[in-house]
Amino acid sequence: MGVSGCGKSTIGKLLSEKLNIPFFDGDDFHPQSNIDKMSSGMPLNDEDRYGWLVALNQLANKQLKNNSCIIVCSALKKSYREILSTDIQNQVKWVHLAGSFNQIFERLNNRANHFMSSDLLQSQFDTLESPKEALEINIGLKPEDIVERITKELHMKSEFGLFGLGVMGKSLSRNLAQKGFKISMFNREEKGTEEDVAINFKKAHKELESAQAFSNIEAFVNSLQTPRKIMLMVNAGKITDMVIEDLIPFLSAGDVLIDGGNSNYLQTKQRYNYLNTKNIHFIGVGVSGGEQGALKGPSIMPGGNKETYNLIKTYLESIAAKDANNLPCCTYVGEEGSGHFVKMVHNGIEYVEMQLLAEVYTILKNMGKNPDDIATILESWKPKADSYLLGITIDVLRKKDADDWLVNKIVDKAGNKGTGNWTTIATAELGAPSTLIASALFARYTSFYKEERLQASNNFNIKPSSFSLDIDDVLKAYQFARIINHYQGIKLISEAGKAYKWTLNLSEIARIWTNGCIIKSDFMVELISVLKEDDNILEHKTIINQVKLLKPSINKVVSQCIISELAIPCLSESVNFLNGYATANSSANIIQAQRDYFGAHTYQRTDDATGKFHHTNWQQN
Amino acid sequence: MGVSGCGKSTIGKLLSEKLNIPFFDGDDFHPQSNIDKMSSGMPLNDEDRYGWLVALNQLANKQLKNNSCIIVCSALKKSYREILSTDIQNQVKWVHLAGSFNQIFERLNNRANHFMSSDLLQSQFDTLESPKEALEINIGLKPEDIVERITKELHMKSEFGLFGLGVMGKSLSRNLAQKGFKISMFNREEKGTEEDVAINFKKAHKELESAQAFSNIEAFVNSLQTPRKIMLMVNAGKITDMVIEDLIPFLSAGDVLIDGGNSNYLQTKQRYNYLNTKNIHFIGVGVSGGEQGALKGPSIMPGGNKETYNLIKTYLESIAAKDANNLPCCTYVGEEGSGHFVKMVHNGIEYVEMQLLAEVYTILKNMGKNPDDIATILESWKPKADSYLLGITIDVLRKKDADDWLVNKIVDKAGNKGTGNWTTIATAELGAPSTLIASALFARYTSFYKEERLQASNNFNIKPSSFSLDIDDVLKAYQFARIINHYQGIKLISEAGKAYKWTLNLSEIARIWTNGCIIKSDFMVELISVLKEDDNILEHKTIINQVKLLKPSINKVVSQCIISELAIPCLSESVNFLNGYATANSSANIIQAQRDYFGAHTYQRTDDATGKFHHTNWQQN
Repeated sequence: MGVSGCGKSTIGKLLSEKLNIPFFDGDDFHPQSNIDKMSSGMPLNDEDRYGWLVALNQLANKQLKNNSCIIVCSALKKSYREILSTDIQNQVKWVHLAGSFNQIFERLNNRANHFMSSDLLQSQFDTLESPKEALEINIGLKPEDIVERITKELHMKSEFGLFGLGVMGKSLSRNLAQKGFKISMFNREEKGTEEDVAINFKKAHKELESAQAFSNIEAFVNSLQTPRKIMLMVNAGKITDMVIEDLIPFLSAGDVLIDGGNSNYLQTKQRYNYLNTKNIHFIGVGVSGGEQGALKGPSIMPGGNKETYNLIKTYLESIAAKDANNLPCCTYVGEEGSGHFVKMVHNGIEYVEMQLLAEVYTILKNMGKNPDDIATILESWKPKADSYLLGITIDVLRKKDADDWLVNKIVDKAGNKGTGNWTTIATAELGAPSTLIASALFARYTSFYKEERLQASNNFNIKPSSFSLDIDDVLKAYQFARIINHYQGIKLISEAGKAYKWTLNLSEIARIWTNGCIIKSDFMVELISVLKEDDNILEHKTIINQVKLLKPSINKVVSQCIISELAIPCLSESVNFLNGYATANSSANIIQAQRDYFGAHTYQRTDDATGKFHHTNWQQN
Repeated sequence: MGVSGCGKSTIGKLLSEKLNIPFFDGDDFHPQSNIDKMSSGMPLNDEDRYGWLVALNQLANKQLKNNSCIIVCSALKKSYREILSTDIQNQVKWVHLAGSFNQIFERLNNRANHFMSSDLLQSQFDTLESPKEALEINIGLKPEDIVERITKELHMKSEFGLFGLGVMGKSLSRNLAQKGFKISMFNREEKGTEEDVAINFKKAHKELESAQAFSNIEAFVNSLQTPRKIMLMVNAGKITDMVIEDLIPFLSAGDVLIDGGNSNYLQTKQRYNYLNTKNIHFIGVGVSGGEQGALKGPSIMPGGNKETYNLIKTYLESIAAKDANNLPCCTYVGEEGSGHFVKMVHNGIEYVEMQLLAEVYTILKNMGKNPDDIATILESWKPKADSYLLGITIDVLRKKDADDWLVNKIVDKAGNKGTGNWTTIATAELGAPSTLIASALFARYTSFYKEERLQASNNFNIKPSSFSLDIDDVLKAYQFARIINHYQGIKLISEAGKAYKWTLNLSEIARIWTNGCIIKSDFMVELISVLKEDDNILEHKTIINQVKLLKPSINKVVSQCIISELAIPCLSESVNFLNGYATANSSANIIQAQRDYFGAHTYQRTDDATGKFHHTNWQQN
């Protein structure tokens, strides 16, 4: 592509010979009507061009079925290039032959039998919308050098880089390669612990045949087409900052760094601002799905600048999971750190979903069921409450180890990697009470006090008394708590959107969570349409009816567990939350009175509609 | 004070004439034994000096009973000065006449009939421990100028400054003045909203007769003796930083800023470091007690550099509340922001204590009791569970407004000013689950969704069914939850101490919380001795026995409330917490298995004492 006179045909033909793929001149594909119009001296308008561009796109699609081809076309506008690359966005490689007005004007008018007015050329430059996604080559070079450069860049260089080959980095690399992308992969070299990681990984998988493997940062960066797209799959926090510093010396203006780790959303904003000063684009991307999801299609939550997202959209949407309508479980979430925020809340919801299953296990175990019994019960819940986490819990419960169930041999100290913690902090900071996420986090923290717990178990001698409950009530209690969990998580996202002025589409967020990610579930599918109608799911008629139907069961289950001395913090909090949330007149009046008493914090009165703040001397009566 | 030859006697006599108070030369008070020893050419040792210093201290004490006096004494060592100021630390004013070795050596040897060897003078300089608390005057000035300067500094200048006359600043000012300190007070001038605040406040209270009032920062700072001691009583956050910037241009090296606001403990550390670069000392002080406490004696929690604390100890300990043994409810808490951290947790515990009383109110109200009935019931609980907050809640409940109780007219949206939020964040960050504080915070947040709550009340139509419970069970449930609350708050402080390497004395912290502060209670008094024996109160025999006795009641109360659809998040969480805490084998094994399943996060095995981490392919069975 490029303006008239940039040398497209010359270079295109040379390249075609060198690469041994067919060459097509776009001008040869104009329909008769366009040719007639041009012959009569009338300029083409965009409507005229439409059919022609579609024809060229069909040509390209057809050629790609076999091998490849070279097509030259001025393709000055972004909209033309979009038509030209329809359905083959992943495969099209744009080369822009770029020169200055004077350079081209001189060249054109030196040609025999050719004259182009400066006005006409100026109109080409005016029309040109320089492509960010193209390989830009200066026409001042000799033709053979231009061809050499293009061959090297497009043929040899990778289009996407993966930095860090941990569990997730490896899976994403294979996923990208399976989708036909030519990638470069980097992993650091650490004597004794991390040796030849990238090269060994490449050798181990057939789909990585044409991928390039590196343990040298400079070589890795240089192996990528510009503008470079590098996805960081490293530990969140300081490591991410260190890696960014390591990369910067080798990057060029316009390159894109994609942080695919579980980074804190506030840090993502800081990194965006920092890299902006160096003309490096930065996108924070939440990726969920674990090892398998990353390989077969994760749910992807990108946040940052929309234009930057468009540069990497092809890659992310190609590797993402597909929803029920075959749309990618990847959508542009919003500005700044919104992608990482949404991923953080995803993990918060996940904490609760896991804790609720652990509490259900506690209840059923206390009713005398063994892990296989419990698995069978959970299996029977699938028609009403299926989810990825329910499914894996069934597998977990069935797993044997010698003559026992494996779960019985696992130390009950639950780890955490920070996102549940951050969600709890966000909920505190934003004043949006995601109480279940906090409860689930604290349950993990409490589990970690194993030594203290053993001592307390002796000291307090709490021996849960057994009881029998209707299994259907337990299912309903579980369903109830899951609704409250999803309400709270989505509410937190919605409040963050307001606080940080992000433009979020909650229904789209639910949609990209319907596949590929850890919290995918039948209920999430239901939420897509609910959230189209109400931002607050507890104000949606269908959900209200479900909650009312389920409430008597959770009341029964929680009160029974309390009497029998079982720890069920999330189930318990879910019912307390709804009781508080649905209380028209709460006891917060007492708290306001106390605050006014000792701190003169003032209060509002129900009989003063002005909202004025009052203070009382409470000691006088 | 000062080395031999600095001119103490000359200046002391001049000053005595000018101020019209008696003059005493310390050397005249040596006992005969010292005189004999010196006459025989033997130097005095510290033991010899002891009786002499005590005599001078008795002299000073006696003189202060009438008016005042001037005593000259070299007082080279800190320990000497401590003896000299015993019992009169608040009243002693030290003036250090300071000069260089050469300055004094010359002066001494120019005197007729006088010779001091350079060795002897050098030994004086070697012994000198320069006092931080003294007014230092260079002896190069003319005697009349020195006297002028001392008169101005000591006679006219205030010893302590109060910046910001809000509710707390005003009360602390009056408290300081009532204790006999000469203070300066500052409040900004804002047309229309804050005019002549300081001057009007001074006029309104007799005890402020000798206090100085300012609305000009420079004049305020210059009105203080150096090193200046300025207590900031302004809003935490940005305002505090702005005020510090406003003050800096007028401060001198060695001045002390005391932040008495509810500042975030991490910011206190940052401010300490920042001011350190400007040679300004900084102390973060938690102050609790509300308006009345600040006036009559608050609980004070200072953190920072211990030496800096010693400069302001007199003021803080004088105005603090007194415990049962008449010791001040003020103690050096520890390094960095530990004072503000402890104050933050104090407020977190306070949130829970308030919420528990609100929940008790909810329960009793649902049992058909009116506010007066409830007040009577709470009154009857005093012998078993008295606290400041219980007391004020009784007053609150009894307060009438026209023909109704005032509480019935208070809008039920509970405000918060940040410390509950910070405590919840700290609990998440430090991995120490203060679950009740989070629950109490979230209850306030939920109360704030008033519009949503009204709608939800209609949609879900939750109408708590009435029930009857034994009042004694409600009391026991309340007592139980309070124990868990105090356990969690103190545990959080203890974990912070470990994480930040602060040297904390938990029993002392409980002691300074037994009077003056919002969470003072009979239970807090009990905790002083408990915490002397166990950092973890749930491992103390007395507490264990109480918990076991109370547990059946809270089980009963909480399960009844759940069945009847009342919101009692803190009571409910307290019982869940203990059930989880006292579980030897929890369901966290399920969570570890799930995490290993989808994220290869690995787990430990009960049958592998090495603590090794294992990974399983869970899908194969």
